[in-house]
Amino acid sequence: MTQAAPLAVSLGDPAGVAPELIAEAWARRGEAGFAPFFVVGGAGVLAAAAASRGVDMPVAPISAPGEAARTFPDALPVLDGNDATPSFGSPSREGAELALHSLTRASELALSGEAGGVVTGPIAKSKLAAVGFTQPGQTEFLADACGLPHANAVMMLAGPNLRTVPLTVHEALAAVPGLISRALIVDKARIVTRALARDFGLAAPRLAVTGLNPHAGEDGRMGREEIEIIAPAIAALQAEGLAVTGPHPADAIFAAHERDRYDVALCMYHDQALIPIKTLDFDQGVNVTLGLPIVRTSPDHGTAFAIAGKGVASAGAMIAAIRMAGECAARRVS
Amino acid sequence: MTQAAPLAVSLGDPAGVAPELIAEAWARRGEAGFAPFFVVGGAGVLAAAAASRGVDMPVAPISAPGEAARTFPDALPVLDGNDATPSFGSPSREGAELALHSLTRASELALSGEAGGVVTGPIAKSKLAAVGFTQPGQTEFLADACGLPHANAVMMLAGPNLRTVPLTVHEALAAVPGLISRALIVDKARIVTRALARDFGLAAPRLAVTGLNPHAGEDGRMGREEIEIIAPAIAALQAEGLAVTGPHPADAIFAAHERDRYDVALCMYHDQALIPIKTLDFDQGVNVTLGLPIVRTSPDHGTAFAIAGKGVASAGAMIAAIRMAGECAARRVS
Repeated sequence: MTQAAPLAVSLGDPAGVAPELIAEAWARRGEAGFAPFFVVGGAGVLAAAAASRGVDMPVAPISAPGEAARTFPDALPVLDGNDATPSFGSPSREGAELALHSLTRASELALSGEAGGVVTGPIAKSKLAAVGFTQPGQTEFLADACGLPHANAVMMLAGPNLRTVPLTVHEALAAVPGLISRALIVDKARIVTRALARDFGLAAPRLAVTGLNPHAGEDGRMGREEIEIIAPAIAALQAEGLAVTGPHPADAIFAAHERDRYDVALCMYHDQALIPIKTLDFDQGVNVTLGLPIVRTSPDHGTAFAIAGKGVASAGAMIAAIRMAGECAARRVS
Repeated sequence: MTQAAPLAVSLGDPAGVAPELIAEAWARRGEAGFAPFFVVGGAGVLAAAAASRGVDMPVAPISAPGEAARTFPDALPVLDGNDATPSFGSPSREGAELALHSLTRASELALSGEAGGVVTGPIAKSKLAAVGFTQPGQTEFLADACGLPHANAVMMLAGPNLRTVPLTVHEALAAVPGLISRALIVDKARIVTRALARDFGLAAPRLAVTGLNPHAGEDGRMGREEIEIIAPAIAALQAEGLAVTGPHPADAIFAAHERDRYDVALCMYHDQALIPIKTLDFDQGVNVTLGLPIVRTSPDHGTAFAIAGKGVASAGAMIAAIRMAGECAARRVS
């Protein structure tokens, strides 16, 4: 088995919690399944974040990703001299510029193969928009970086107990029924199936598709999308040989005894997919982007400016995101 | 403290799991918080259900609810001679007639005060419709029995970890945005607040109201219902002195560390309210009807014809429903 290249971690907004969570993750590098990683930029911010959290973490500048693995056991490797003044809780234009640089460079290194994948720290979209970030989110930014349509980048939420994919994401609820189509379900299910096979070692992943309406419409009594759109899409996928079931009532499918029956739930909209993940495992959710040529994960939380620098933010999701990216990267080179 | 009258349990569809779950609940009558109860009708069905589950349960006919408390320690009290042929898994017209009789009589006894409250076994609406049941569900049946508009009967789901109220219930998702109004939120919140004070001992219950859209609309970027409808309704309720917060993002509000901050979440639609309850505690959810002059609870599951009579159905929700009805009934007479 070939060794995967080290992971590139983007700093996220340096005024948020990402720098301290990266420090905490580095401090726990001895835990099983942790691949070497380096951060792009922000050496001073990271050192200050570690100090604010009481984490003993030397920071070691590196000039190429190839140096990361050697450095990682003794210090956090940081690539590039770009930095910002530490100002936890107070986002700034300087910080936004650093965040955008870090994200851009990390994705370039993953695309070139110098990094085994990218773990993105959380950003504040409104802050980055002021310095030239034009996409709705980091997922779309990465699709653009890979030269692919946004629709190819599929968001999956993965917790210790459950994986879900929202078919539609940041859309007003009133718009959701009009956005559901057979083609959308079929396209996303294919991307999800291929990605779970390649990156998660599931040769024939089992997809459970939810209904849109209460009780999956109850035979058309509460909405006809299940009959006219969702069930035909499932039949088409089954005809391709995919292990797809549904439409399942969304209130029942996430129960403990149901979760063993599928590898991922394909949900119709944001809250249907996010509520069960965050209800079960708020602090450990990982946002994984499927369908791109690069591995990308992210902790499923925001910048949390209000608690940045206070040492109280949970590092669970950041650690899970780094571990999962390492596992996916290792499968790609094995 | 006055003793509450015994609870009336309606049999539900006798071909479903309710009879065996009632038997199991009676067998565990020694557990803390269990009030005496009696069943209306179905003595033969109940005896057969107990036998199918291996529960040693004598059945004792009673001629008035007042006899239940004396009988309860030694046998299951059953009121009325109505019965049906046991046929677990195979619903029949005879069974539907028994279920409707049992529900009707149990609600009459609760209204007259001879029963301290009613616990309803699950029915199959399509089966009961054939014998004269005209309402969409048992909740609406009970509102009619109490002579109140259906809107006054508010469904609350209660699990060991969470209580939720769906503002809209059995509606196609596409219809939901058009049904949300300030008046609906204000009316339901008032009913919920009064009921939690009277029946649950929460003098000043804390209500958390969810948003309709992802991230509660994110300042109008994904839908304006939060700005135009939900926030003004919350402000109006706060002006009345109620402890109401929101609109909260629905994917975040059910996390463990958030659940301590409110007593009930008022949700915009069915799956938003039901997903977190069933994800956390599938087998222990209780459906409570708030806003009626009578106490009414129900296990939050269906008839489960497919497993009836096989001894595998979980009695957790039935037991929780009986315990909760007993607690609410006791508070009303204290």
